[in-house]
Amino acid sequence: MELNKRQMDILAIVKENGPITGEQIAVRLNLVRATIRPDLAILTMAGYLDARPRVGYFYAGKKPTQSISDSMNAMKVGDFQSMPVVVSESLSVYDAICHMFLEDVGTLFVVDKSSFLTGVLSRKDLLRATIGNKETEKVPVHIIMTRMPNITYCTKQDTLLMASKLMIDKQIDSLPVIQDRGDGLEVVGRITKTNITAAFLSLADDHEL
Amino acid sequence: MELNKRQMDILAIVKENGPITGEQIAVRLNLVRATIRPDLAILTMAGYLDARPRVGYFYAGKKPTQSISDSMNAMKVGDFQSMPVVVSESLSVYDAICHMFLEDVGTLFVVDKSSFLTGVLSRKDLLRATIGNKETEKVPVHIIMTRMPNITYCTKQDTLLMASKLMIDKQIDSLPVIQDRGDGLEVVGRITKTNITAAFLSLADDHEL
Repeated sequence: MELNKRQMDILAIVKENGPITGEQIAVRLNLVRATIRPDLAILTMAGYLDARPRVGYFYAGKKPTQSISDSMNAMKVGDFQSMPVVVSESLSVYDAICHMFLEDVGTLFVVDKSSFLTGVLSRKDLLRATIGNKETEKVPVHIIMTRMPNITYCTKQDTLLMASKLMIDKQIDSLPVIQDRGDGLEVVGRITKTNITAAFLSLADDHEL
Repeated sequence: MELNKRQMDILAIVKENGPITGEQIAVRLNLVRATIRPDLAILTMAGYLDARPRVGYFYAGKKPTQSISDSMNAMKVGDFQSMPVVVSESLSVYDAICHMFLEDVGTLFVVDKSSFLTGVLSRKDLLRATIGNKETEKVPVHIIMTRMPNITYCTKQDTLLMASKLMIDKQIDSLPVIQDRGDGLEVVGRITKTNITAAFLSLADDHEL
């Protein structure tokens, strides 16, 4: 249940001034007691307020519960992202695979000399490169990587929902989180289906299952 | 907000008999009108009931909103799982990689002659096997796979939350969904972080952001 404006106002008044009688609350709102009676009933029954006879209303400590849509829209990429792992365009496929294991990530981002994003390497890309080619020491990653402008990315300010939708629609396991520097895209993070899975769990924790 | 027993009873009575006056509802519940007044106020303000002067209460069509915890606990592995892709223990690493690409999955499950689970192969396992070894046609997968009893699995009846927690805690990207046949574990599905990401999205859809 979402509280309306008047109920939020009443909650604020009681929080500040409680214990306070219904009559006093009404005066502060320039309303008559009868007008706010249903609001007080709803706030009391929903557990926001406690009422004590001959004392008045006081704040019961319960915060307005966020709706699931509010909770989910408040989850931003910036709050759940991981550190990006970047490599240069001239690195060999062999070294990229070693780097992937050392860093224990599923995706490497390829950057140019200005540190701007030029490509993405997934485990799948690297596996494909090894299976057709035994000389992986000699192949630079820029030959096999997914290149700009075919890279799907997001920013810190995007919602996790938007990032999830991109990953599902494009069938990819992670997105670079970028910051547009005007003359290029700087890689500032990495958002993966692992981050989304962790967010899914945190959603349950926040609402105390 | 969760409705209490009496509010649910009132909702049922109005649904069946509306329009109905508060007095008539009270009679059916063997209560006096004053007792149920706050309940009627809360049901009306929360949008479950509509009240029309001199007519009475009628059902406004809104269903009790599920809490986020109820929604999440109702999400079972069986409702979100994907088809499993299985291979035999004697398959070569090379053929397993080809199979993984053909089926476009990130994990293969290895089964014995009775079709019972004996191992798991991730992209990471296969990539590791290729990087140290150029003769992947000659290495059978049972040499490199993760074996029982070191395999983490789940059942159709488990919650997605439980499966998510297992994947995060064990740092793995997918779980076999199994059915215990007494003398072995039959693989009946596959749950991945992609499934969890899709579930995260569906949670938003269900609640109409």
